[in-house]
Amino acid sequence: MSQMNADTLAPVPAVLSERELALIDAYWRAANYLSVGQIYLLDNPLLTEPLAAEHVKPRLLGHWGTTPGLNLIYAHLNRIIGNRDANIIYITGPGHGGPGLVANAYLEGTYSEVYTGIGEDAEGLRKLFRQFSFPGGIPSHVAAQTPGSIHEGGELGYALVHAYGAAFDNPDLVVACVIGDGEAETGPLAAGWHSNKFLNPVRDGAVLPILHLNGYKIANPTVLARLPYAELESLLRGYGYRPITVAGDEPASVHQQLAAAFDEAFDDIEAIQRAARSGERRERPVWPMIVLRTPKGWTGPAVVDGNQVEGTWRSHQVPLAETRDNPAHRKQLEQWLRSYRPRELFDDNGKLRPELRALAPTGDRRMSANPHANGGLLLRDLDLPDFRDYAVPVSRPATETHEATRVLGRYLRDVIRRNPDRFRLMGPDETASNRLGAVFEATDRTWLADTVDGDDHLSAEGRVMEVLSEHLCQGWLEGYLLTGRHGVFNCYEAFVHIVDSMFNQHAKWLSTSRELPWRRPIASLNYLLTSHVWRQDHNGASHQDPGFIDLVANKRPEVVRVYLAPDGNTLLSVMDHCLRSRDYVNVIVAGKQPALAYLDIDSAIAHCSRGLGIWQWASTATGEPDVVLACAGDIPTLETLAAADILRRELPDLAVRVVNVVDIMRLQPPSEHPHGLPDKEFDALFTSDKPVIFAYHGYPWLIHRLTYRRTNHHQIHVRGFKERGTTTTPFDMVMLNDLDRFHLVIDVIDRVPGLASRAAVLRQRMVDARLAARSYTREHGEDDPQISGWAWGVE
Amino acid sequence: MSQMNADTLAPVPAVLSERELALIDAYWRAANYLSVGQIYLLDNPLLTEPLAAEHVKPRLLGHWGTTPGLNLIYAHLNRIIGNRDANIIYITGPGHGGPGLVANAYLEGTYSEVYTGIGEDAEGLRKLFRQFSFPGGIPSHVAAQTPGSIHEGGELGYALVHAYGAAFDNPDLVVACVIGDGEAETGPLAAGWHSNKFLNPVRDGAVLPILHLNGYKIANPTVLARLPYAELESLLRGYGYRPITVAGDEPASVHQQLAAAFDEAFDDIEAIQRAARSGERRERPVWPMIVLRTPKGWTGPAVVDGNQVEGTWRSHQVPLAETRDNPAHRKQLEQWLRSYRPRELFDDNGKLRPELRALAPTGDRRMSANPHANGGLLLRDLDLPDFRDYAVPVSRPATETHEATRVLGRYLRDVIRRNPDRFRLMGPDETASNRLGAVFEATDRTWLADTVDGDDHLSAEGRVMEVLSEHLCQGWLEGYLLTGRHGVFNCYEAFVHIVDSMFNQHAKWLSTSRELPWRRPIASLNYLLTSHVWRQDHNGASHQDPGFIDLVANKRPEVVRVYLAPDGNTLLSVMDHCLRSRDYVNVIVAGKQPALAYLDIDSAIAHCSRGLGIWQWASTATGEPDVVLACAGDIPTLETLAAADILRRELPDLAVRVVNVVDIMRLQPPSEHPHGLPDKEFDALFTSDKPVIFAYHGYPWLIHRLTYRRTNHHQIHVRGFKERGTTTTPFDMVMLNDLDRFHLVIDVIDRVPGLASRAAVLRQRMVDARLAARSYTREHGEDDPQISGWAWGVE
Repeated sequence: MSQMNADTLAPVPAVLSERELALIDAYWRAANYLSVGQIYLLDNPLLTEPLAAEHVKPRLLGHWGTTPGLNLIYAHLNRIIGNRDANIIYITGPGHGGPGLVANAYLEGTYSEVYTGIGEDAEGLRKLFRQFSFPGGIPSHVAAQTPGSIHEGGELGYALVHAYGAAFDNPDLVVACVIGDGEAETGPLAAGWHSNKFLNPVRDGAVLPILHLNGYKIANPTVLARLPYAELESLLRGYGYRPITVAGDEPASVHQQLAAAFDEAFDDIEAIQRAARSGERRERPVWPMIVLRTPKGWTGPAVVDGNQVEGTWRSHQVPLAETRDNPAHRKQLEQWLRSYRPRELFDDNGKLRPELRALAPTGDRRMSANPHANGGLLLRDLDLPDFRDYAVPVSRPATETHEATRVLGRYLRDVIRRNPDRFRLMGPDETASNRLGAVFEATDRTWLADTVDGDDHLSAEGRVMEVLSEHLCQGWLEGYLLTGRHGVFNCYEAFVHIVDSMFNQHAKWLSTSRELPWRRPIASLNYLLTSHVWRQDHNGASHQDPGFIDLVANKRPEVVRVYLAPDGNTLLSVMDHCLRSRDYVNVIVAGKQPALAYLDIDSAIAHCSRGLGIWQWASTATGEPDVVLACAGDIPTLETLAAADILRRELPDLAVRVVNVVDIMRLQPPSEHPHGLPDKEFDALFTSDKPVIFAYHGYPWLIHRLTYRRTNHHQIHVRGFKERGTTTTPFDMVMLNDLDRFHLVIDVIDRVPGLASRAAVLRQRMVDARLAARSYTREHGEDDPQISGWAWGVE
Repeated sequence: MSQMNADTLAPVPAVLSERELALIDAYWRAANYLSVGQIYLLDNPLLTEPLAAEHVKPRLLGHWGTTPGLNLIYAHLNRIIGNRDANIIYITGPGHGGPGLVANAYLEGTYSEVYTGIGEDAEGLRKLFRQFSFPGGIPSHVAAQTPGSIHEGGELGYALVHAYGAAFDNPDLVVACVIGDGEAETGPLAAGWHSNKFLNPVRDGAVLPILHLNGYKIANPTVLARLPYAELESLLRGYGYRPITVAGDEPASVHQQLAAAFDEAFDDIEAIQRAARSGERRERPVWPMIVLRTPKGWTGPAVVDGNQVEGTWRSHQVPLAETRDNPAHRKQLEQWLRSYRPRELFDDNGKLRPELRALAPTGDRRMSANPHANGGLLLRDLDLPDFRDYAVPVSRPATETHEATRVLGRYLRDVIRRNPDRFRLMGPDETASNRLGAVFEATDRTWLADTVDGDDHLSAEGRVMEVLSEHLCQGWLEGYLLTGRHGVFNCYEAFVHIVDSMFNQHAKWLSTSRELPWRRPIASLNYLLTSHVWRQDHNGASHQDPGFIDLVANKRPEVVRVYLAPDGNTLLSVMDHCLRSRDYVNVIVAGKQPALAYLDIDSAIAHCSRGLGIWQWASTATGEPDVVLACAGDIPTLETLAAADILRRELPDLAVRVVNVVDIMRLQPPSEHPHGLPDKEFDALFTSDKPVIFAYHGYPWLIHRLTYRRTNHHQIHVRGFKERGTTTTPFDMVMLNDLDRFHLVIDVIDRVPGLASRAAVLRQRMVDARLAARSYTREHGEDDPQISGWAWGVE
């Protein structure tokens, strides 16, 4: 093959005896046979009769090209497990090669254990084949339904970061990570190679990247496959790995090379770990990796209709497309299937022959049954301190200031202390900026690269993982959670959009795995979004975007939760709740700047348990109000309370009710979200006919969406972020978006029937106050201290 | 400095004469002085009096750490421009170093030309300083307001891809791209290095990456700065570059090294281009790059309050934080400012001394005034073929099938043919999959890496850019558009979420630049989203997400447009419109699978001009209808028409109106979006009181949001994607989400007053039809041909 770079290859070793070679090749053929069968066959699974049109699926949906490579690697990892009793999980970067992973789970018996309807016999084979990419069956990609997988393989780019996440704090685990050469072109994968600077060989397991250069994507060659070999090797060494290359298109040679390469790699991993764990070696190791260069669609049809298929992009999906209607294609399919010599592999009943089954590991050592790939099996609850011990005293609401995330930091510090083996805090170099610095009293930042004097809290033992890549933070955390551990991702609110698509896929995974009884619940993915839209004083418009919540709200309600903590004590209560939850994505939005505290800890707990409620101390209404001032988010809460303060002074006979919302999913009816407040309770809070002025943290539309089916919906007027942002003062930001206290008072005057004429003077004063505030800010470069220093009940 | 790796350095060259060295150092000091002034000073800009508290800003908002490095590079690039008359633009990866770029634009006079209120005198300096990060002033980051910038610098990761985008088809341009070592940790940047495999030295300009290793991010060292030098060099060589290293903390030495390095790099670039353009050399060149290792916060305060600041992460933002209230800090600030010896740099009137001004280039050669950095100045309209020539004949609506994107492909082929210097088609290896293959009749895929026999349409001259990274596709296109060219990004709908955050930033850039009269309009960013949620037969749930439209709808209405083309002819009309538009983001969603054609080209043009309208041929209502069936998107349109077909047969006296929506922003009132339909026209289409069953392509909520203020809103019932997806047949997909024809008929029966009793039998038949369809699909693995073969008016 032209891209084989044969000159770089050593002579083929002979690691496998002839019998071993024959057996491992047979096992590979069995997996390939089952893969092709899944893509093509409805019936006649053992080819006991000539292949007829009705045996073939009417719609051929799947991907063959990557599959023989995945199967080859799987068979050889089985050999390593057998020889060394190694504890290995298999991450499938080219996840579209779904049939391969299903085939292997079937060959080692796991599939029939998990899906008892699909037995190890001819009827089981028939069902196995039929269900693949079939209505009511299983997806074409590696997915939650696939035993042994920890991630949905549809969206490429995350294999390596998931692999590292799985390896952290699992010292005995080796995570074999197959990276497709197409996937290797993505940004997250390209950045992910540097994860080795964050892996501690003492405490963590190992990741063995296997870069599978089969040369092609859907219709193009891949970049890495078309580099001169020296350049590729330089790249991989630059990433900090020692590549071991295997290349060829002769099975016997490739089997021998790959067996030798895996032996070498696992020897090396063991040596690295031994040296590190004995204390003999302290510096960051150069970990081994495999470069496997084999043809795309290997062992499939070489030429179809005169076009070269094997070894080219044409084998990406289904090499033979007309097997139902074109007898020549069908004939070629039959030859292809028979080329694996199925009768040598399966007995008359369709059961894998015992000498082949003996090659597969048993029990939990099977990669398809390894409990690390069903993390809920290994999940242990966090040992959580009593969050009430971290509460800030609040003698009177809205009079004292705290930094909410700093309050939380002290709690997280002790979560880290108590859970040294199963909790990590991820963040793109923002943990200190986000005022969670107390965690560094308990731990350091994970760091295996070089250090110099004066470095701040860096060590191989650190449990805070900081890298300037939201993709890595998210991917590591996903891998860590999916293998049964816990964590929090703290992120600037605007930049969490960088991982929108990763969130989407994780939420989909959770939705699906919740429907699979054998998948055990895992810890929730907890986002702490701070440095939020309203307080980007240093950065301006590029850092202002509260839209992640909208994205989250599009996913299935049973897996998403959103909490807007108005102050430090509510943040403590919310975080405690989220750290105890399972199988959710929890989005927590909180401020980091000094801000008023509203609730003492008991009130905070009561408030968070309800998720929303009346703040009577800020309300003038005792019975039915004239107007409801609702708020969600720390800054909207501040402005709402300041507006309530103006109203109670200026219009003392107006009955104002203040409602604060922490859990915004409570706004939906119970039919839409499990947290939904019953209509009657909603109406009791928000009335059925009074104006509601709702000050919301994000894009206003979400509140309409959530309250759309409520009785009083037409009276709900929402203020929020309307995409007016820049570098300016906090109060100027709220004014730019009409969310300021003065505007809220104007809204009340304009919306409460009959108030406009009675409060015309006040209304004008509010208009003037806005102008004056703006002038003050522009002149002094800071907010009028009368405004920024506002506190409840202080003139 | 400990990380200097002095052993790798060659002896310091002496490229600059003593006078040249003194001058370039003075220029650098001037830029540094202006940068510090912007961060700190309200007044006393020339330090003509001792620095007092009132001269200092009350809120210190900006980033010093990266700025001296940015200024150093700028000064040396000016030298290159002067010596070689080079055409260079400057991409600021560490965009938070905003003061540096503003300072340089001011030093070369551009700032005062663009912002005439800020003159080249003491009063101008005072205003320049005051406005920075000040209410009503300019952002702290490099932004649209910054002359010479082509991107907002707030979100890191895109410098290199923007640089390559700018270089494509600009053979005389050199794009100098400063990459921060923090930014280098991001995924998009890590993948972006490989852009050199897509840059043609004959036709394109050059990119000169300058990796600035100042060692630290916000609170952490950077990964690349802490690699052994050999490993870093191996990485960069593996990426295909030849690194030239400059390192030190002695200005004189660094000036000499950097001057020599730039001379070498520009010599090398010229040699590479000469060899390629003369035909002497065909293979992909190894381009030079610079590695610049200097201290973070260089020339700033070394130690503050006993802590080392210069050369550490502590210099990231403001090294001295209490200059207003702490006299010691203020004193240190004054010493820092005076260390630049401002009186040597500026005359008594505050004007830069002429011998320094002489170092800056003039006119368009100034990087701050280079027209490539204000792309609209160079924008030439596309030479567009008449899209009507590509129309498919439609003799009768909804009876013949076409693939919409294949129809478009022929048109795009000729757009490429006619615009060989200013149009590119980007896509993550999906152009053929998305059925735009006709473009390969006119061009190839851009490819500078190795080729082998059998490769399909790869060449250095290709104008289709395919790489398996949405980040690269988006970033290249942004850079290409921002420098005055045109393009389309074709992408699988679900995976465009990968670039959500890039879209956000581009949309914000457009919003801001539209408010700056000196920024000229650029071509719109056109997305063609296909392989959409409803037709992911091969891939399933991971590939099903129509939520990008929701993200887009959160941005400012003046810059976003969304078009859902129901068929090939409408797609042609929409694309022609988008390619002529300016300063928008256009999202076009269209199908690629064989589907019914609805409109002949004249009807399509008329329909697209209105953006929405009644399809009378499918309606039974001639006057006021009993019910409106509205639809947006190809599959919802199909199901709506099939439902209309059932209704006209089964309930012939029911007056049904079918409305199709192409431009969904028309649904909003004119107060919300420039495309908004006046209320009267909206009511004329959708009635003011009749039920509207709206079948929508995406998440249903968006339609409610857009129509929220309409008279008849409470009667609008929307069906769309409700996050129910898997690998299944097309009709099963719509059934899973209650968007199928049978369910739409049920909706009509349930919503039209009085129909429920009259149509009870039909309703039950619809329920049964759904069950039967589901059974058929599960049994046969394909849809019932009666359903999939439906056409208008065929029994």
